[in-house]
Amino acid sequence: MSIESTPAAATAAADFLPLLLALAILIASAKLVGSLSVRLGQPAVLGELIAGLLLGPTFLNLTSLPLLEGPDLGRVLHQLGQLGVLWLMFAAGLEAELDDLRRSGKPALLAGILGVVTPMLLGLGVGLVFRYPLQDALFIGLTLSATSVSISAQTLLELNRLRSKEGAALLGAAVIDDILVIILLSLVVAMVGGGAGLTGILLQLGRMLAVLLLVGLASVYLLPRVAEWGMRLRVSEGLLALVLSCVLLLGWAAEFGGGVAAITGAFVAGVGLGRSHLREEVERALHPLAYGFFVPLFLVDIGLQADIRSLGSGAVLFTLVLILIAIVSKVLGSGLGARLGGFAGRQAFRVGLGMISRGEVGLIVAGVGVAEGLLAPEEFTVVVLMVIVTTLVTPPLLRLAFSRKEGADAAVG
Amino acid sequence: MSIESTPAAATAAADFLPLLLALAILIASAKLVGSLSVRLGQPAVLGELIAGLLLGPTFLNLTSLPLLEGPDLGRVLHQLGQLGVLWLMFAAGLEAELDDLRRSGKPALLAGILGVVTPMLLGLGVGLVFRYPLQDALFIGLTLSATSVSISAQTLLELNRLRSKEGAALLGAAVIDDILVIILLSLVVAMVGGGAGLTGILLQLGRMLAVLLLVGLASVYLLPRVAEWGMRLRVSEGLLALVLSCVLLLGWAAEFGGGVAAITGAFVAGVGLGRSHLREEVERALHPLAYGFFVPLFLVDIGLQADIRSLGSGAVLFTLVLILIAIVSKVLGSGLGARLGGFAGRQAFRVGLGMISRGEVGLIVAGVGVAEGLLAPEEFTVVVLMVIVTTLVTPPLLRLAFSRKEGADAAVG
Repeated sequence: MSIESTPAAATAAADFLPLLLALAILIASAKLVGSLSVRLGQPAVLGELIAGLLLGPTFLNLTSLPLLEGPDLGRVLHQLGQLGVLWLMFAAGLEAELDDLRRSGKPALLAGILGVVTPMLLGLGVGLVFRYPLQDALFIGLTLSATSVSISAQTLLELNRLRSKEGAALLGAAVIDDILVIILLSLVVAMVGGGAGLTGILLQLGRMLAVLLLVGLASVYLLPRVAEWGMRLRVSEGLLALVLSCVLLLGWAAEFGGGVAAITGAFVAGVGLGRSHLREEVERALHPLAYGFFVPLFLVDIGLQADIRSLGSGAVLFTLVLILIAIVSKVLGSGLGARLGGFAGRQAFRVGLGMISRGEVGLIVAGVGVAEGLLAPEEFTVVVLMVIVTTLVTPPLLRLAFSRKEGADAAVG
Repeated sequence: MSIESTPAAATAAADFLPLLLALAILIASAKLVGSLSVRLGQPAVLGELIAGLLLGPTFLNLTSLPLLEGPDLGRVLHQLGQLGVLWLMFAAGLEAELDDLRRSGKPALLAGILGVVTPMLLGLGVGLVFRYPLQDALFIGLTLSATSVSISAQTLLELNRLRSKEGAALLGAAVIDDILVIILLSLVVAMVGGGAGLTGILLQLGRMLAVLLLVGLASVYLLPRVAEWGMRLRVSEGLLALVLSCVLLLGWAAEFGGGVAAITGAFVAGVGLGRSHLREEVERALHPLAYGFFVPLFLVDIGLQADIRSLGSGAVLFTLVLILIAIVSKVLGSGLGARLGGFAGRQAFRVGLGMISRGEVGLIVAGVGVAEGLLAPEEFTVVVLMVIVTTLVTPPLLRLAFSRKEGADAAVG
């Protein structure tokens, strides 16, 4: 009856205690390695990913350590991380400046479109050459399409070139990129999920579009009113609580009703609320919740899911080729787009370089692929490595391209 | 192969989708009913509890509805709610104004002590009379001890009497009450967990005190430094992320190392950081995270766990007696304490009335009791009802006691 070494408190709460310890380790590691990464001139995301890899099965294998063996600890952590993605995509929607896009115009539009299509097609091709099934190859192509411009934006900011013509085009192209990738992701998920037959696919597509339209209308017309209502509630954080509830509901509705990924619903909710005057108020409350707790969990959870050790020798060649294709296809596609949009060769090249780095969105796409069973775990690991390498090479390449002495022409725009 | 009505997206993510919908419903309901409650002159906590009761097994039984049947949805919701308690107790620690206490002095101290001891002993007695086991009766007594002064403070604020002598004594007594209950909770858990024999209990007590001392030292000396470090991190929300990690870690350490409830560790962490100049910064970031997401989940989760229908006819009498004892014992205990501290009879009576309402802390204590297997589910339900009724009666009683014409004497202090 009396087991002095394990008091009742420790045994009965066995489920909850490993969660506390794991959360403490994961969040602190993410932020500490993330900060180290920034100090080394790299984006924080990179450090948070690497923290996850160090804690994951590749090295430490955290969730199998003695004090951290909960029966479903890994699953709870993953669910918390997935909530983080939802907040992240909602925040991205809030920030999607459709005006930026209009200002930077044709080069941005073409750089965005060709910068998505080229990697998508080349990635699909490489996947097929390496004999992956069609749906896996499609998903691999999709993960190659998703630029994360925050890394380039930060680099240009440091170089004092963010307000150059190239900088504006880059930001505009990134918005196009985000929107196209989200649409393509929903299409791919819906097509694969819809089963065989053209009728099935068309039905599924129609249903998807209908649900997206409804979610969009609700986001633009209802969500701002609900937010107003939340402001008037006589409870603390009423605004944030109601807005989060709506994001959860719209994400749920998108996926449940239309087979669209829940994150698409969250993104659309963000775009809808982004036009409201309450946007800044919502962002101020969302920020600590998202970046102080959930988003770091999402980023380290990616590392927890990736296992570099499990990559066979065949995958090493595939990884190297895919990384090369990821870099070349963006420079070619986005660069060509900017050139066709009227930029000079050197300027267009710089835009292409700025689009190389992949980040959150590519990882989110890959995560959806794994969750839907459309992407194998080792392909997920390859995508994580691709994101890490493209993120690593972008800042030095950009610095090099902008540091040439004829850089002055760039500051005209 | 093609099941048009359930696209892959909906089936593969079957685990996650019910969670999204449930969170949306729970958070929105908590805040809406909470706000309604405030409009009706009651505290928000009351509405949030009632929202939980409506959604719980007593009425709707949310987690067994068609779209919400996840395999372990209830457990994940409970874990999120438990994280909410941790943030709540940390926030309570941050706000524990030890200075308030000093100012209100002797009447506050005695009202606090006698206001804990009297309900504890009377509750224990009632529990034993109704033939509950000793440990259950002890826990029932403990839940009767935990005042929630926020309700009375709000009422006095509306009456413009918060800065009266009674108001100051009430706030001071509430701090004493919180601290005593937390200590008693840890003692009860440790004693029951330590098994049979005086040596076992003494060993366990020593270990508990040692761990609490370590957690306290870490909270006072290390935590503010970690927070400073978090401020300097070059990542977003570095301060909040590191502080939350420390709260999780200290909570874990208290429970794992000493058999003390994790919330005690979180409370101590709050008291430690509350003396730092970063306190307000931490509170500003913690507030949306806690009150916009986790705390409403904690409060509705209480309702999800309580099942009034399951109360047998014997329990009805017990519930009524316990509620009566809860009210009488506080008025007597705290009133006597204030009187002994030098207050006039009427003033002392008002302090006693202000201490009647129970709230979060009582529910937290009851929750720990259930988690440790020291409190049966139906006893938990009785405690929830006791909290609801005591909360309901306090504002009108206070208004009545203060509205008498000789109220002027109260504004002297």
